[in-house]
Amino acid sequence: MNVLITAGGTTENIDPVRKIKNTATGRLGNLIAEEFVKQGKNQISNIFYVCEKGTIIPNLPCLKVNLVSGVNETKCTLTKLLTDNKIDAVIHSMAVSDYTVDSVTTVDDLAEFISQKLFSHKEDFQTERSLTEFITGCIKENNRLLDNDKKISSNVNNLMLLLKQTPKLLSMIKKLQPSVILVGFKLLSGVKKQYLIDVGYELLQKNDCDFVLANDSLNISNDHHIAYLISPDKSYIQFQTKEKIAHGIVQKILNMVDKR
Amino acid sequence: MNVLITAGGTTENIDPVRKIKNTATGRLGNLIAEEFVKQGKNQISNIFYVCEKGTIIPNLPCLKVNLVSGVNETKCTLTKLLTDNKIDAVIHSMAVSDYTVDSVTTVDDLAEFISQKLFSHKEDFQTERSLTEFITGCIKENNRLLDNDKKISSNVNNLMLLLKQTPKLLSMIKKLQPSVILVGFKLLSGVKKQYLIDVGYELLQKNDCDFVLANDSLNISNDHHIAYLISPDKSYIQFQTKEKIAHGIVQKILNMVDKR
Repeated sequence: MNVLITAGGTTENIDPVRKIKNTATGRLGNLIAEEFVKQGKNQISNIFYVCEKGTIIPNLPCLKVNLVSGVNETKCTLTKLLTDNKIDAVIHSMAVSDYTVDSVTTVDDLAEFISQKLFSHKEDFQTERSLTEFITGCIKENNRLLDNDKKISSNVNNLMLLLKQTPKLLSMIKKLQPSVILVGFKLLSGVKKQYLIDVGYELLQKNDCDFVLANDSLNISNDHHIAYLISPDKSYIQFQTKEKIAHGIVQKILNMVDKR
Repeated sequence: MNVLITAGGTTENIDPVRKIKNTATGRLGNLIAEEFVKQGKNQISNIFYVCEKGTIIPNLPCLKVNLVSGVNETKCTLTKLLTDNKIDAVIHSMAVSDYTVDSVTTVDDLAEFISQKLFSHKEDFQTERSLTEFITGCIKENNRLLDNDKKISSNVNNLMLLLKQTPKLLSMIKKLQPSVILVGFKLLSGVKKQYLIDVGYELLQKNDCDFVLANDSLNISNDHHIAYLISPDKSYIQFQTKEKIAHGIVQKILNMVDKR
């Protein structure tokens, strides 16, 4: 049996010394890998483990570590692993950055650019809506950008970062290998339990997951971690700690594999 | 003798799960603390060590660790330490974030806000410059903001972050305790050596530093770290490794203390 686990967070560069990160530590991915070895006994041939440098990596003989940096590299690595290997289960616990830096500008530069565009635009705007659309276009086309391949100076006034969404890696997994057992993860913050379940279930349906683990960042601390493992029939099991989450996910997957 | 070392980087929150970090590891601050114990023999009473959780912390009996999170907390901790204790030397090697998140908006919301303001503005703009100023004001006053006390949804189109500069902590140190020996740090990226020296020297003069260590991120790797320790007469010593930087800084400071 081959398992693929993604763990920890991803990092997107603002410039060579500044980056956008998230609070993920990789502890849960770590525990899931250990549970596979514990519960899977001699069934587990390889655990492909995808994470960034700095993430906690479990010390297991069957572990094949693939270090990545950023969403794009993670996407390439996942594609390659899922193309080259027969994988039985993918546990995509990695907190992949939802946003990456598109461009960096300043308030002054952006205002100047919009102003210039408005001045050179001959016709009047009849409606607020048409003006809004024109300005939206200006903001997106703004070419008064700072070069973020170099370190941005420490003394820029009113820096602006324009972010763009990253590709959703969860959605590509079953397309690459339809037979995998897929576990997705959804983290929200400060929401009602039913809403969390609903959003987690939506993610499950959209990405053809076999399970989704839904959790709320306000219910995660050092010693407890409340989470709901949602099934395709929208039933769910509640867990209270990372250890129990890891145990529960692996148990469900091994049960499915045994029935196949 | 009491020493204050700041080390590693600082983290600014975008929302409860996303943050802006920098690439600093704290390895140099760590080595400097160890050098003080090695070279300082019995002279060192306390090393106050200010860093964020996750930074490498040296294991030394005289170390008093002060964990902080973000620029504001770092500022408060430094102020308290420099107010409550007689400190002989401050080595401010921490890569303090230059920017913190002021507000979060979207391109569409910002465009709508500017458009509305322009429509309700009665008089015409005679010059491009006056229009630029008006739009600059709009961008800063924009109230179509996302609530970044909660986790920002993963599905926002064209997210924009407006950043503001953080207070320069280096400038407050000699104001709080004028007698300290102060070592500042300047990191640039991909610049000529003379420019690096000039900028480092400017920082030294502006903040009344006794030394400034100037370095270029392109000349830092795992096994080498080229840096220039600049003195008030603008002469400088060049180092090739983190170990030699730490040794050189501590040697200079202990020499100054001996002469007092």
